Amino acid sequence: MKTETTIQGLSASLSPARSARKIIGFVPTMGNLHEGHLNLVREAKKICDVVVVSIFVNPIQFGPNEDFDSYPRTLEQDSHLLADVGCDIIFAPSVEQMYGNKPRLTNISVSDITNDLCGLQRPGHFDGVAVVVTKLFNIVQPNYAFFGEKDYQQLAVIRQFVRDLNIPLEVIGVPITRAKDGLALSSRNGYLSAEHRAIAPTIYQSLTAAEQQLHSGVSLAEVLENMKQKLTQAGFIVDYVEARTPELQKIEAFDQDVVLFVAAKLGKTRLIDNLQVKHTA
Amino acid sequence: MKTETTIQGLSASLSPARSARKIIGFVPTMGNLHEGHLNLVREAKKICDVVVVSIFVNPIQFGPNEDFDSYPRTLEQDSHLLADVGCDIIFAPSVEQMYGNKPRLTNISVSDITNDLCGLQRPGHFDGVAVVVTKLFNIVQPNYAFFGEKDYQQLAVIRQFVRDLNIPLEVIGVPITRAKDGLALSSRNGYLSAEHRAIAPTIYQSLTAAEQQLHSGVSLAEVLENMKQKLTQAGFIVDYVEARTPELQKIEAFDQDVVLFVAAKLGKTRLIDNLQVKHTA
Repeated sequence: MKTETTIQGLSASLSPARSARKIIGFVPTMGNLHEGHLNLVREAKKICDVVVVSIFVNPIQFGPNEDFDSYPRTLEQDSHLLADVGCDIIFAPSVEQMYGNKPRLTNISVSDITNDLCGLQRPGHFDGVAVVVTKLFNIVQPNYAFFGEKDYQQLAVIRQFVRDLNIPLEVIGVPITRAKDGLALSSRNGYLSAEHRAIAPTIYQSLTAAEQQLHSGVSLAEVLENMKQKLTQAGFIVDYVEARTPELQKIEAFDQDVVLFVAAKLGKTRLIDNLQVKHTA
Repeated sequence: MKTETTIQGLSASLSPARSARKIIGFVPTMGNLHEGHLNLVREAKKICDVVVVSIFVNPIQFGPNEDFDSYPRTLEQDSHLLADVGCDIIFAPSVEQMYGNKPRLTNISVSDITNDLCGLQRPGHFDGVAVVVTKLFNIVQPNYAFFGEKDYQQLAVIRQFVRDLNIPLEVIGVPITRAKDGLALSSRNGYLSAEHRAIAPTIYQSLTAAEQQLHSGVSLAEVLENMKQKLTQAGFIVDYVEARTPELQKIEAFDQDVVLFVAAKLGKTRLIDNLQVKHTA
């Protein structure tokens, strides 16, 4: 496994694979890797000849009061984990390598599907994601790019701009990896106190309870209200509990496949999760 | 020479060249070709193995009161001209092929350098250019892309987003092709009446006169004022006469290289031109 910190170095490392027209897989991350990321790499290994994992904490997707500075940087540990799952190349550029010294004037924005859910609390966040992911796609030029379904809205935004801009690659969504108690794995779980960590699985419990209620005929509005209550009673500050179609359109009743979304805070730590509930007519 | 009307067809046509790692050149146009366009193709032929010319009148870069519907579509004539200069593949997609049936939610905007000059009179124009050019870049995946310096601001915008987004190609600007009387070639020249066509070269005359005045020590402000007067007296409605640095920053005095910009109307026809004036210390 190689580690490249410059665009030029990465291009040189990928050049033989590109010349041989090997299948290149790409897993963009912000590092501080957990089993969820490693599962993305494992999926990539199944269908790609060469797997590139980027580790880059992207400043422009963090809001002014968010955790950019404190976001954990754990490159050495991440490298060991990635070597173990067969990653071929780590791309770990500096902020300067990615954004240069001249001001960036270009923005990419995706309308409509970024206006609510996490977009509401994090203005500019998805623009920052769209810009950095587009840059990374252009640098790596992979055949396949792998993203976790935990950041479902992010995955939908990426699918959208890839289609709208004809970016020549296929986006692959990988199901959420969960701890044994159901908590969706996230780098931010590390911020949780022991007490909060014990409460955190309530999110997934609320999602699976909601799924059961939907299948037993409880109305969508009531199900969402029940989730909010359950989370609030457990000690969460609820950002949102919402239902959307798989394409993130609003939905009033459980008359088609639905995705349930939760964002909620425990102390200063904001956790998100989602569950796809199939409609069986 | 092949003509492809679908993305799939183009990809198939380019596949052997891509596999053989040939150098692919790309000249995006809106058709209605003139010597200016053909010179772009000639430049491309010099350094590329395969030259693709796209012909696509891009609806999203036209304002509601602009000439999208009446913009001349002359594919057959264009094809003959392109065959003569050695174009290898024409890519002439439909609007549906480029934009599909689902709504486009993604926008690309370049700030600062799009705020004035043509950006002022044509809100959204450069966003439309950025989106379609990015799409075409992703479809064609060329090594080099060629643009005329006549649309200087457009060229600057394209250079900017190519750099900001790490698009893996080199942008090449090609000097303006002029009629013998100095008029910059443009598809829109065809809209001019005989009377207006006779007046039109005043634009270039005003630019070269300005260059001489600058070199003989007349202040930049006075030079710009002289240009405006000359054009107005000739019968133009002046949109703007402006000076900028080559990177499109405002400039108060001729103390470095400067680009002079004109946009002016004759009847309903809006003409633009520019001249780069070197500063020799």
